[in-house]
Amino acid sequence: MFLCNLPTFFKKQKIIMSAEKQKRTELKDIGEFGLIDVLQQDVKLYQESTKKGIGDDAAVIDASSEQTVVSTDMLVEGIHFDLSYMPLKHLGYKAIAVNVSDIAAMNAVPRQVTVSIALSNRFSKEAVEELYKGINIACENYKVDLVGGDTTSSRSGLVISVTAIGTAKEENLAYRSGAKPGEILCVTGDLGGAYMGLQLLEREKQVYMSNPQAQPELKDQEYVVGRQLRPEARTDMVHEFKEYGIKPTSMIDISDGLASEVMHICKNSEVGAVLYEEKFPVAEETLKAAMDFHIPSSTVVLNGGEDYELLFTIKQEDYEKVKHNPNISFIGYILEKEKGTQLITKGKQVVPLQAQGWTHFKQSEDE
Amino acid sequence: MFLCNLPTFFKKQKIIMSAEKQKRTELKDIGEFGLIDVLQQDVKLYQESTKKGIGDDAAVIDASSEQTVVSTDMLVEGIHFDLSYMPLKHLGYKAIAVNVSDIAAMNAVPRQVTVSIALSNRFSKEAVEELYKGINIACENYKVDLVGGDTTSSRSGLVISVTAIGTAKEENLAYRSGAKPGEILCVTGDLGGAYMGLQLLEREKQVYMSNPQAQPELKDQEYVVGRQLRPEARTDMVHEFKEYGIKPTSMIDISDGLASEVMHICKNSEVGAVLYEEKFPVAEETLKAAMDFHIPSSTVVLNGGEDYELLFTIKQEDYEKVKHNPNISFIGYILEKEKGTQLITKGKQVVPLQAQGWTHFKQSEDE
Repeated sequence: MFLCNLPTFFKKQKIIMSAEKQKRTELKDIGEFGLIDVLQQDVKLYQESTKKGIGDDAAVIDASSEQTVVSTDMLVEGIHFDLSYMPLKHLGYKAIAVNVSDIAAMNAVPRQVTVSIALSNRFSKEAVEELYKGINIACENYKVDLVGGDTTSSRSGLVISVTAIGTAKEENLAYRSGAKPGEILCVTGDLGGAYMGLQLLEREKQVYMSNPQAQPELKDQEYVVGRQLRPEARTDMVHEFKEYGIKPTSMIDISDGLASEVMHICKNSEVGAVLYEEKFPVAEETLKAAMDFHIPSSTVVLNGGEDYELLFTIKQEDYEKVKHNPNISFIGYILEKEKGTQLITKGKQVVPLQAQGWTHFKQSEDE
Repeated sequence: MFLCNLPTFFKKQKIIMSAEKQKRTELKDIGEFGLIDVLQQDVKLYQESTKKGIGDDAAVIDASSEQTVVSTDMLVEGIHFDLSYMPLKHLGYKAIAVNVSDIAAMNAVPRQVTVSIALSNRFSKEAVEELYKGINIACENYKVDLVGGDTTSSRSGLVISVTAIGTAKEENLAYRSGAKPGEILCVTGDLGGAYMGLQLLEREKQVYMSNPQAQPELKDQEYVVGRQLRPEARTDMVHEFKEYGIKPTSMIDISDGLASEVMHICKNSEVGAVLYEEKFPVAEETLKAAMDFHIPSSTVVLNGGEDYELLFTIKQEDYEKVKHNPNISFIGYILEKEKGTQLITKGKQVVPLQAQGWTHFKQSEDE
């Protein structure tokens, strides 16, 4: 399902954006209300709690006896995504998934989303429909209702702002602040794939731009490219925790790289931690791609970001319940705050953990 | 409190943006976490229902037995605001007020907001602080809690996305769809001021740009300029309706001009309506400004927008309870759907109502 043939994709995406060979309806010709009508056609509702969706000043939600959790994220063209290799449908899917991921990271069940977009007249109605196809597929997958939003123009590029709303019983909520010394640090799935996928796509883009006839080099790279273009939120874990009868003492989703997220949990919980490099879960495809690029795979795990897996802590006594779960890796322990955050390398060296963190502002130049 | 002296303002704003004579801290020097720390300092919480605000993957809200209402809006530089005459503090205030207005239009009480911003490195930390000053003042005025958001960079300009959350008892919610023939169409406050304020500011900007030494011509124009730069949400009406013991049968806030909003209510309620031009509430300052610009004041009322007053319908039998309220004007009646939407002019002519609607896409050119 992912793109092995980027040159073919580049051409297809160009067609959607420029409509060389297909119908292109200008947004100015249908207006805001026309566009909203089009986008509403495919909206389905899944949640009983959605009393009123799109179509009034506000959506109405009946949270009944549960707590409401709310999270919001903004994706900006040229900063968070590059439409020259990101299909609009995948982008729509990803915009929902990354917000649903924040709800899952509270150990809550996602219920509703609102989606606001700003876009320039470079985008046609067909391009917006492509974006909303992905949004609607994600809504169906995660069973969340699209209940509102805003559609406006921008002077340049596409901005997507999503707010996700979920519910949880108060006693089930997992904050970043609950980790205690002695508890086990766990991660779901594998890490670093999304970052390596991005490196591959960027490389292919450069190759394609210098020579549109070049053969693609993404054979056997579907996995890492897919991790970048279409990440999934780990809502399955919320159900698994319930089945096991356990509650993570703290939890966060891994959007910025493992190091940064571990430090968030440590800061909020006022604890330290030790990580074991040898325990990092890395897919074979990720390892291979990292070798190709001469980057140590642990660097990719610690600072890569965008995997949207969950990092959480459990009590020692809960280990038995989850130890055979193939989705969970046990990567370290929580320490007293004074011990700081440490990494024990494969060579048994103890090094302080460092978060590279977020560098968007460094890239942004006003155009 | 508003700007009589635009040249002085233009200079001040230029200083905030460029920091010619004051401290300018680059965002890249403090990073995302540094900026979030700065912005969190002034966040106060007012609502008991806010169980967890900023600082985790999601905010946690206890809506208890009431319904939750959610609304979202996006403001884009160059489309919705022009920083050459919109002070950043007022912009922050307005971003909150327009979202709170949507909650009020449901006859609900606003409780929480999330604020996401994308901004280029043209903005300094001090500029962002100025914006959040306005956001925090609005939060205090409306007693809403800032519980989350996202801060990211953009390739050009400023984008602000706000989601507002409120609560109401199910039986008090006022949808757009409840109007019935025979009911009375009402509006709060006065209309058209915000649009005339915009015209004045645009004119002064042109004058200033062609001659920075020109004397400002905004004397006695504070009212309309204030309506544009710092609109207020009519949350007071939600309390007044409660005191009167009445519930509007339908309600909407006036963001796009009266004609468009009347047509929304008619479409959603499947009814028609008749409006009386002579009943339109127009402030003296608005009338004067409209005369200066040779625009009929009714055109401004019908198509001007951004007043953020409330348009609502009440049953005939509720008229006695509100007829002396100076905040309410009675501008027409709901008709059967077949009658359509009509305007009766001051000259007693009957003309069909037309909504100019939303034309943002026509203005946007990719830069």
